[in-house]
Parts: sequence; structure tokens; C-alpha cells
Amino acid sequence: MRKLEQQHLEAFFEFLSIPSISTLSRYKGEVAKAAEWLMKRMKHVGLENIQRFETPLHPIIYADFLHAPGQPTVLIYGHYDVQPAEDVHFWTTPPFSPTLRDGRIYARGSSDMKGNLFSCLLALESLIQIKQLNVNIKCIFEGEEEISSPSLTAFVQEHKELLACDVSLNCDGSMAGEHQPVIGLSARGSLMLELTVQAANQDLHSGSWGGQVPNPLHVLSKLIASFHDNSGRIAVPGFYDEVYELNEPEKAEVRVTPFDEKKELEQLGLNSFFGETGYSARERIATRPTLEVNGLWGGYTGEDAMTVIPSKAYAKISCRLVQHQDPHKITQLVKDHIAKHLPAYVTFDVKELEAPAYPYVMSAQHPINQLLANVLKRSYGTEPSFEREGGTVPVLALLQQELGVDSVSLGFSLPDEQIHAPNEFMRVSSLGRASEVYAAFIRTLGSTSLFKTSRDS
Amino acid sequence: MRKLEQQHLEAFFEFLSIPSISTLSRYKGEVAKAAEWLMKRMKHVGLENIQRFETPLHPIIYADFLHAPGQPTVLIYGHYDVQPAEDVHFWTTPPFSPTLRDGRIYARGSSDMKGNLFSCLLALESLIQIKQLNVNIKCIFEGEEEISSPSLTAFVQEHKELLACDVSLNCDGSMAGEHQPVIGLSARGSLMLELTVQAANQDLHSGSWGGQVPNPLHVLSKLIASFHDNSGRIAVPGFYDEVYELNEPEKAEVRVTPFDEKKELEQLGLNSFFGETGYSARERIATRPTLEVNGLWGGYTGEDAMTVIPSKAYAKISCRLVQHQDPHKITQLVKDHIAKHLPAYVTFDVKELEAPAYPYVMSAQHPINQLLANVLKRSYGTEPSFEREGGTVPVLALLQQELGVDSVSLGFSLPDEQIHAPNEFMRVSSLGRASEVYAAFIRTLGSTSLFKTSRDS
Repeated sequence: MRKLEQQHLEAFFEFLSIPSISTLSRYKGEVAKAAEWLMKRMKHVGLENIQRFETPLHPIIYADFLHAPGQPTVLIYGHYDVQPAEDVHFWTTPPFSPTLRDGRIYARGSSDMKGNLFSCLLALESLIQIKQLNVNIKCIFEGEEEISSPSLTAFVQEHKELLACDVSLNCDGSMAGEHQPVIGLSARGSLMLELTVQAANQDLHSGSWGGQVPNPLHVLSKLIASFHDNSGRIAVPGFYDEVYELNEPEKAEVRVTPFDEKKELEQLGLNSFFGETGYSARERIATRPTLEVNGLWGGYTGEDAMTVIPSKAYAKISCRLVQHQDPHKITQLVKDHIAKHLPAYVTFDVKELEAPAYPYVMSAQHPINQLLANVLKRSYGTEPSFEREGGTVPVLALLQQELGVDSVSLGFSLPDEQIHAPNEFMRVSSLGRASEVYAAFIRTLGSTSLFKTSRDS
Repeated sequence: MRKLEQQHLEAFFEFLSIPSISTLSRYKGEVAKAAEWLMKRMKHVGLENIQRFETPLHPIIYADFLHAPGQPTVLIYGHYDVQPAEDVHFWTTPPFSPTLRDGRIYARGSSDMKGNLFSCLLALESLIQIKQLNVNIKCIFEGEEEISSPSLTAFVQEHKELLACDVSLNCDGSMAGEHQPVIGLSARGSLMLELTVQAANQDLHSGSWGGQVPNPLHVLSKLIASFHDNSGRIAVPGFYDEVYELNEPEKAEVRVTPFDEKKELEQLGLNSFFGETGYSARERIATRPTLEVNGLWGGYTGEDAMTVIPSKAYAKISCRLVQHQDPHKITQLVKDHIAKHLPAYVTFDVKELEAPAYPYVMSAQHPINQLLANVLKRSYGTEPSFEREGGTVPVLALLQQELGVDSVSLGFSLPDEQIHAPNEFMRVSSLGRASEVYAAFIRTLGSTSLFKTSRDS
């Protein structure tokens, strides 16, 4: 494995120290700063035609290296924005002061996905340096993935020629373990709503009013209770209508890494998993949709007690969607359910928080996945797993819909690396390995004849 | 009506500007400051034997004026602590910068109940000055009423001799309108709990885990939904077992101020009231218990979305209890219900937030209430209403249990004065009127022969 040089680590720490939180508007300047940093880095790598495209929110960065006529064009996708890290008191070291401890780099965004992005650029740098870049490269790095890529659709639609390619390489992927590579076959779609339920127009004293006026916290709790039946199945009418049930060959092609359920439960401090009955825990993640309340609040939440009947109660609700579910249609079904279940003595408002994302699926049998499998097997000495994954990567369905290309996913985030949580980290060893595997896969894409027909036609 | 002098207003503003918030520990010093202020004021009034008693939380202030041998002793109760006012952005002027606007004094605690306390001291001041104080007075002012008076029980038990009296005057009362006096016949008891529900030991990403792990927000919502049936009745087994149903004479003695339901709903921005069926809105406040969630929170509550499955979810729960309900017994019933309804795949913790308070009831026919009715009728030219009230005043049941005395309630807070809410205010006119009525009632207590027997025996 190539040893990571000190200067690379320093550059990576610089990147990690920029709090490019796309979710919170007060970080807009920081997201822009990360974009600037990335453009400088791309120049350093040797990429050309570096451009910054403004969007209503955060910039999209493009660069290319088109010096392999007749060879395939690979569109590399990544994102430079990160999740919020407001819960700083849970972090051992501050989320944007990258810290090396025990071979791990602790920082928000290290594992998701500045590490992958940085490694992929290292790979391109070395291929360009040694003049071994045998494909045409186009890079598109966005700053809005953590908020569901709201600007990406319009951008891709307006720049089809610029982005034209044979295949897309999505760097926002993960592994099952340090020595167990994974090829992701799917990403779930998503939608995100914020619901406000209002009873009286003011907070009221529960002594003077309790028993007489509606309590929006009770109403909202009852509504949330109506989202699932007791078996964990979503009770929104029509929710499962388009859900695709995998056939036997499709189930067979999913080669999930065996996992120790008992150990996993122990690590999570749980005595059992919970979810829709009739499916294993892994099947639920891979092939079943969800409806989750991600945030819930209202009334007095401070120290001790304050006997208020609040005016308003709030919930943030998201769904993960699977093959054949249309996020726009499901949004409407959830809205209908809310409207039907809330009593007439409250008012409510539903806001769509982020652009809905379509689910994406790619067969394990796809020749590019088979190529990737060979590369991974050579590098790790292990057959990669083929997994359907539960996360959302909006770009995958988008590139398929708009550019007609498949996206192969390759990334090095590990399950224990606390992504979206306090104390996120990435292993230093993953960085070096990642750049090596990215380089090997890109070279393999340059050696295949897979794309001949499409490019010649 | 006596015109309030400028110097009185200035002194009152000084009192109001001390943020004596008992709920929040960081205000401990401010609560103590208000106690000090009060002791100085009592000295100014001419009260004697002024003492400060330390408690585990906030000081209890005592003073007396015992120069009417053979006459009744009246124990005057009040509290100098106030509710929190964390929602400063909802206040037109800051909660602890008392502001006079349109004949109203805006400040946290103005109506609940620094205004009553201040007026009662004005009344004592004038009676002492003109040598017309024909009863013995003992004052006990606490700084923990808004947190359910946790230190008061032990204090009263340990100072029975000091507090010995013929009757207690509770100044923490209210009126139905500017020209409609009210005699409060009851106070509801209370209990306050904080519930924490925990699923995994860490926040998890809903893409990687959604569908597989329990979501404590769903679990907590389902539990809260189980607290009431669809008719608004509390579904905790045994909750109503000891609830006393008023007989016809008792119902008849309640002379509720007629109110315009339509107008009240309009002011609250509601299209209907809601509560236990089979009882009118006013009956529910007066004679029925409640179980309310006063605060609910968990997960991501910031801007936009973050697709987290939180580790923990929290609820603050309180009950208002009525005649014959034992707060300790009801606490246990609620805890049992929680334990029974939460699924085995989560853990939970229930914390008792404040000392439980017993309910209190005093008949409208009680001779002291009849005396008070005459005083109010003379002052307002209107028959007072007799109302069973929904709030909690822990001292009432306590003095009955420990000292064997009844507490008559007289206070001047008005229903629109936003107590426990932003922009709390008290009318300037109420202050002058209040001191006049307090003085008249105290003098009346000195002229009655009601207490002869008990004192002579």
C-alpha cells in the first residue's frame, strides 16, 4: 500500500477544517470556501478547464482532463459538503479541528466523503504525473448532497454536452469492513418534510387551560403513532403500491457480508432490531422503504418543568424509497395521510424541506460492476460483496435519467466511522488504499472494450 | 380608588426587574436577590421579626406584626419567584425590563404574582401607618411556587408554632374580569415527570439504519398517544378511581362567571375546545384531572433536515389532580402505564421533576368565604363568582394538613394577562384596587367573631 505523504495529510486536514455544512444557511460562506479549496486542489492535481457554476445555493465544481481520444469518458462524482455538527459537546475534539488519534482522522466529513474525494484526486494526480491516465476524465463535485442535491437536476439538464460520458464513477460509497470491499448496487430515494401542528395561537398555562384546549403535542404524537402499524409496517395508504419485490435471481445476486448480529446489537446498545416484519434486518435496509421521524419538538424543553400547553408542535419526517417508488407521489400520499388524520380542531402546515430523490438500482451482473469486482478482488484478496444500500445518492438516478449512463459506486467509508454522528473519523490507512484502488479501477476502465459500440455509434 | 403613588410604582418596577426564576438553576442568585429586596420592603412596610430561612433551593421569608392580642392571626401567603421567560424574542419589551404601556405594566411575574404580593404589602403598610391593623399578621413568602414548592412541606412541618394562625390568606388568586371578582374554591394538585426513552446508544444515519433499528421518537409518540382515548379521557388505568364527582348542591354553589365561548375561542385562534367528553369546558378545568405533555423533543430540530435516527427522545409530562386524588398514587399509576406500554427494545427512565402537590377544596358556604364575598361586593358592586380553579397552589392543602387551617384565596390577576406566557402584564389600576381590597378584607377578619372559639379553647 502506498504510504501517504505528510504533505498530503496536511492538505487533507486543510480541507477537513472548512465547515462546509450545506444544511445551515449561516455556513454558506464556508461551503464556498471549500469549493475554492477544491478548485485549487484540482489545479494542483493537473486537471484542466476548471469551472465554478453558481446555483441558487452552493457552487458546483467542474474540471476535466480529455487527452485520451477514442478512449472512454468517465464522469467522476463527489460532494464536498458535510453534515451539521451542532452537537459539539459530544465530540472528543472539535468537528472542524481535524485530529489524528490512533491512526484515525477525527473530523466531520472525513468519512462522508471528503476522504473519498481527496483520495480520488490523489489517484488522478499520480496517473497524470506518470502519464498513465488512459481515459478521459470529467469531474463534477457538488456542495449540496447532504441536502438532497436540489440544484443538481437543473444543472445536469442544462449541461448535458459538458457532462456527456460513457460511465459515471460515484465516489460516495462505502465498504463492509477494513478488508471487505463492497459494490453498492442501489441507493434509496428520499423525501423530507417538516410538519407544524398548531392549536391555540399562544402558549397557555396548563392550570388555567388544561383539559379545555387541544394540546398539539398530543395531536402530533397520535399522528406519528398512525404512521406505522404495530408490526413496523408503514400504515400510509398506498405507500407500498409500487414497491418492487425482488425475485429469486435478484435476491441471489445480493452477496451480503455476513455479520454478527449479536455483536452489532451490542455495539449499538440494543437488545433487538426493530422494523417491518417479514424481512430480515438487512433486507429492510436494502429493499424496503421507511418513514422516520428525524426530529420532534414543542413546548418547554429546558431544565425542570414549565406547565405550558404549547401553541405549536413540530416534526421533521423523512422517507427512504426503493425501486419503482416515485418520491413525488409518495410525498402526496404522506401529505394526504397527515391531512386525513389530524383533527379539525388544529391547523397544520407541511413544508417540503429538500428536493425529493429517486431510488437507483444497478445489477451485479452489469459488466462494469464485474470489472470493478475484479479490481477489488486483486487489491483486497477477497471477493467483494454486492450490496443493496440504504442511503440516498440523488445523482445516481439523475445521471441515468438525464445522461443515460450508469453509475458505479466505489468508496471507502467504513460502517463504524460515525458518519452523520459525533466523532466521525476516517482511517489514515483507508486514504492510501483508496487512492490506489481508484487508480487501478480508472486504468481498468481504459482497457475495456465495453464502451466501444456506444462511442462509435 | 386610591391612586398609586409614583414612588410605589418605582419600587414595584425594581421588584419586577429581578429575574427570580426558580425553575432555572442559573438564576439562583437572582431569586436570592428578590428575597433580599422583599425583606427590605417588609421592613419599610413596618413588619417585624423579619427572617430568612434557607432551604435546599430558595429562601423562605417570614415576618410578622403581632400587636392585636385576643384578635385573630392571619397567615398571609405569597411567592416571589416567577416563571422562566426564555422566549425573549416573543416579548415586545424584555421580560425583566418592566415597561408601562397603555396602563399596563409588562414584565414577567407582574400578574403572577409580584403584583398581588406588592399590593398586599401596600395594604399592610397603610393599615400599620394609620394604626388600623386589628389582626395579628404573619407573612410567609416563598421562592419555589413555580416549581411546586418542594421545600415548603418540610418548612411548615418544622415551624408549626411560628406559623400557628386562625386562617390563611392566599394572595395567589385571580379575577374573572376587571369588574368581576372571583372567590377561588379549589386548586388542583399536580405532579411533574420527565421521561427519557432510549433506543441505540448513539444517533444513527437513517440511510444506513432506517428500517432496522427502533426510533425512540416513534416509540415515545405511540406511548403519548396511549395516554388518552379518542374522547380525550385519560387512559391510564386507575387514574379516575378516586376522582370525586360533585353532587348537585356542590355544582350549584359554583357560580361561574358567564363567558362568551365564541369570543374566547376567537381570542385563542381555535375553532373548538377539546377535552374529556361528558363535561363542559369549564367543568373540565374545575373538577376534572388532566395529563398533559408540556414538552417533547428529540432528534434534529434545526434548520432544514438531517436524517438522523436519534438515540433518545424526551417528554415532560404533568398532571393536574382533583379532589381525593393522591399525587403519589397517581405518579405510580402513570409510571406503571409507561412501563407497561414501552416495548422491550427500548430502555427508559422516569424522573420526578417537582414535589407533587395535593388538590385543595373549600366550600363556598365557608363563613370566611362569605365574609370575603361581602367585602368584594362592597368594593366592586357585583356579586363575586365562586369558582373551582384549575391551577395548583401547593400551600393550600399543605396548611390544611399541617396547621389545620383553611386558606381563603384573594388575588387580582386577570385572565388576559398572559401569565406563564410571553408579554405577561398587570394593569396599573389593579394594583391600587388590590391594596384597597386586601386592606378591607383584613380589617373585616379583625371584626369577625368567627375565630373566638378556636382561640379561646
